[in-house]
Amino acid sequence: MPQPTARARWERRAQGPLLALAVLFAVAYAFPIVDPDAPEAVLTACHIVNWGVWGAFALDYLVRLGLSEDRLRFVRSNPLALLAVVLPLLQPLRLLKLVSLLLLAGQRARLASQVRVTTYVAGSCLGLLIFGALAVLEVERGQPDASIKTLGDAVWWAFTTMTTVGYGDMAPTTGLGRVLAVGLMLSGIALLGVVTANIAAWFIARFDKDDVEERRQTEAIRELTEEVRALRGEVAALKGTSVE
Amino acid sequence: MPQPTARARWERRAQGPLLALAVLFAVAYAFPIVDPDAPEAVLTACHIVNWGVWGAFALDYLVRLGLSEDRLRFVRSNPLALLAVVLPLLQPLRLLKLVSLLLLAGQRARLASQVRVTTYVAGSCLGLLIFGALAVLEVERGQPDASIKTLGDAVWWAFTTMTTVGYGDMAPTTGLGRVLAVGLMLSGIALLGVVTANIAAWFIARFDKDDVEERRQTEAIRELTEEVRALRGEVAALKGTSVE
Amino acid sequence: MPQPTARARWERRAQGPLLALAVLFAVAYAFPIVDPDAPEAVLTACHIVNWGVWGAFALDYLVRLGLSEDRLRFVRSNPLALLAVVLPLLQPLRLLKLVSLLLLAGQRARLASQVRVTTYVAGSCLGLLIFGALAVLEVERGQPDASIKTLGDAVWWAFTTMTTVGYGDMAPTTGLGRVLAVGLMLSGIALLGVVTANIAAWFIARFDKDDVEERRQTEAIRELTEEVRALRGEVAALKGTSVE
Amino acid sequence: MPQPTARARWERRAQGPLLALAVLFAVAYAFPIVDPDAPEAVLTACHIVNWGVWGAFALDYLVRLGLSEDRLRFVRSNPLALLAVVLPLLQPLRLLKLVSLLLLAGQRARLASQVRVTTYVAGSCLGLLIFGALAVLEVERGQPDASIKTLGDAVWWAFTTMTTVGYGDMAPTTGLGRVLAVGLMLSGIALLGVVTANIAAWFIARFDKDDVEERRQTEAIRELTEEVRALRGEVAALKGTSVE
Repeated sequence: MPQPTARARWERRAQGPLLALAVLFAVAYAFPIVDPDAPEAVLTACHIVNWGVWGAFALDYLVRLGLSEDRLRFVRSNPLALLAVVLPLLQPLRLLKLVSLLLLAGQRARLASQVRVTTYVAGSCLGLLIFGALAVLEVERGQPDASIKTLGDAVWWAFTTMTTVGYGDMAPTTGLGRVLAVGLMLSGIALLGVVTANIAAWFIARFDKDDVEERRQTEAIRELTEEVRALRGEVAALKGTSVE
Repeated sequence: MPQPTARARWERRAQGPLLALAVLFAVAYAFPIVDPDAPEAVLTACHIVNWGVWGAFALDYLVRLGLSEDRLRFVRSNPLALLAVVLPLLQPLRLLKLVSLLLLAGQRARLASQVRVTTYVAGSCLGLLIFGALAVLEVERGQPDASIKTLGDAVWWAFTTMTTVGYGDMAPTTGLGRVLAVGLMLSGIALLGVVTANIAAWFIARFDKDDVEERRQTEAIRELTEEVRALRGEVAALKGTSVE
Repeated sequence: MPQPTARARWERRAQGPLLALAVLFAVAYAFPIVDPDAPEAVLTACHIVNWGVWGAFALDYLVRLGLSEDRLRFVRSNPLALLAVVLPLLQPLRLLKLVSLLLLAGQRARLASQVRVTTYVAGSCLGLLIFGALAVLEVERGQPDASIKTLGDAVWWAFTTMTTVGYGDMAPTTGLGRVLAVGLMLSGIALLGVVTANIAAWFIARFDKDDVEERRQTEAIRELTEEVRALRGEVAALKGTSVE
Repeated sequence: MPQPTARARWERRAQGPLLALAVLFAVAYAFPIVDPDAPEAVLTACHIVNWGVWGAFALDYLVRLGLSEDRLRFVRSNPLALLAVVLPLLQPLRLLKLVSLLLLAGQRARLASQVRVTTYVAGSCLGLLIFGALAVLEVERGQPDASIKTLGDAVWWAFTTMTTVGYGDMAPTTGLGRVLAVGLMLSGIALLGVVTANIAAWFIARFDKDDVEERRQTEAIRELTEEVRALRGEVAALKGTSVE
């Protein structure tokens, strides 16, 4: 039977290779969209890499499951990890592989400090922006009445959407493109919230009320200490007179 | 004369059935809009269910009123409940039945914790989004120059509105449609506020100032306690010398 | 020479009539825009009322100035009141009379509590929305390529602008119309900020950290009090043995 | 070898002239865009001033570097100053000179108080708005299918973008124009965040929980002081009886 630390050891060792695989996945996902006229062999290679990375993540999940003492508890307390493995199987929503990578990264990073939360959200937004643009480009490009036709258009549209500016010079026209767009909009709201919350927390922590009540307390404690010291002096004097 | 707890007992018992009726109402409201070509009998049934649910809620209000000790005070301290019963009588604004359901739910839920407030606002936003889309679809569909013509269009438009992205590829053209749209916009602002406030409150609660003044106080109180203890020892010693 | 309280007495007495005049001004401002085909006499009456109200506010300023002990200091410490009187003289920006009314109201109200600030901002936003819509309608209506042509259009456009949705189905095309629009946009940002800040402040005040340090302090103070009481008992016993 | 304070003395002296040069730069940057039909001599003069100011800032950097004790450490701890000097060399992004001026101003100002942060962000937003509008105008004006063709158009577009309203009646169509637009959008989000955070911090500081626990503590400390005083009186009385 495996020792309690076997899974933790595996997770520590697997972290580096999995991150490298995630970058590889991102490249293999982006390339066929940016250059659809690339040689057939290259496109096939990208496809294989895509599924290879998925396989590696699925394997990682199974190994972690196998190394767990209480397997049912592992499945229940890691729902995101399971989701990240199962979601990409739904073929049309290939971008969800990216979301699941973000979920995995977030889960493993143990979001501890304000800086880390902000970095994570900003990074996720940037990732969603780039890969959301790519995904919408892939879906819309073939449509006859589409307004998003080049990579530049797609990135520009993603920025106007995520910042909630929404000029409307470009907008997805297919159902799947619109579903992706809603994801970008909601990410944009989250980004706005994190930016604002950061500034607010910083203002409040730095320029907090000059706590009057607390100062009055400190004053009162000091007075009391003086009083007790005087009392002690008097008792000492008393001791002198009593001994005599 | 009814006992003071008679109304509370009724409200506890009626909560479950009223919630079920509310879900039934939502279905009966949505169905004729999603499928306007359904058989006449089905559409009539939906209509009847709509008004039946309204009747049940009106009855609930009257029963609660009857079971109150001080009826005038009940009416005055439950303005939302009265509004929820009276508003749907204004025929053209049928969606307000939904808003009144949300108001009722909010009132009964006693919004106690941050999680509940967020859940309630997010749920209300989702409900308003779906039923706002349905209501705008119903109003706009018949117009010759309308841009919102299918259910997909309406939901897409509702998302772009509530996130304040506002592409403008679709927009209501009728007066009633625009009134509904304003409701969605204001809900969107509320949603944005709740998201931001949540993150800000979490940041502030978690990474709050390491209160230096308070620590200094605790230190001062401890020192003082030591002082008093020493004094007590001295008095005890004094007692010994005095007895001798 | 007037007494120090003469001005305060005047301001208290003038508050009611000035508010009534402000409402009258709003009606006289709005009417000719909503119904430009009204009889010539009515339009002239509105014009006269407009300038009469301005005269009353100017008179109020002069009386307050006359009743002040230190007149130079009054002018310097009430820049908004001066602005509110001077601004409407610039003919093309008639809406600024409204802004100056809001400034006056805000200055006199002494914004003391969170509820009042919110009420004031929400009221100002509503006022700016309605009168911004009217002003833009007046400016744009005559233009050949304008998209804002009816009162309904103007109010709808004002809502989409202030909530920062910005569909773009309507937009001002004249320079003055765009200046007014920028005012609405900035008000919208202020509104969004106040909504969010309200929710955040409420969350933080209600679900604040369960202050552990403070509890520890209260505990320490209680312990100390026990100690002192025991000491007092011992001193009392000592007094008994010493007397004997 | 220079003394440790030589650099600080230089920076204090150079601050005024550099600010004047920054204003001169802004004028020389804006003039050729606002009036492209000005005499050739004037346009050349503006060009020379532009590069002259850059030269002065580069010189300032070199002097500060020369006066530093540990030069490597100066370079590493002032990355923004280096960026501000190097960035403008990339010819197409001339606006970045402005951004680098803002960076320099922010770095030297030691952002200490809430008022200063807000002033700095609001000022930067206004600067970015005006010069962003100018830069986009310069880039777009020549394009055949551009919608931004006059200075008025550009400023109007910049406002709709920075407030995230985004009507879409105007939008940049060139790649460089869009990059500039993204900068304005992100500034707008920062502005929104600062406005909201300000209001939130003000609400929280002003209407903070009426700290009940702290008041109870102060009360307890005062009671305790009374207790000790009574004890002291008793000891004094004891001293009297003991002497007798």
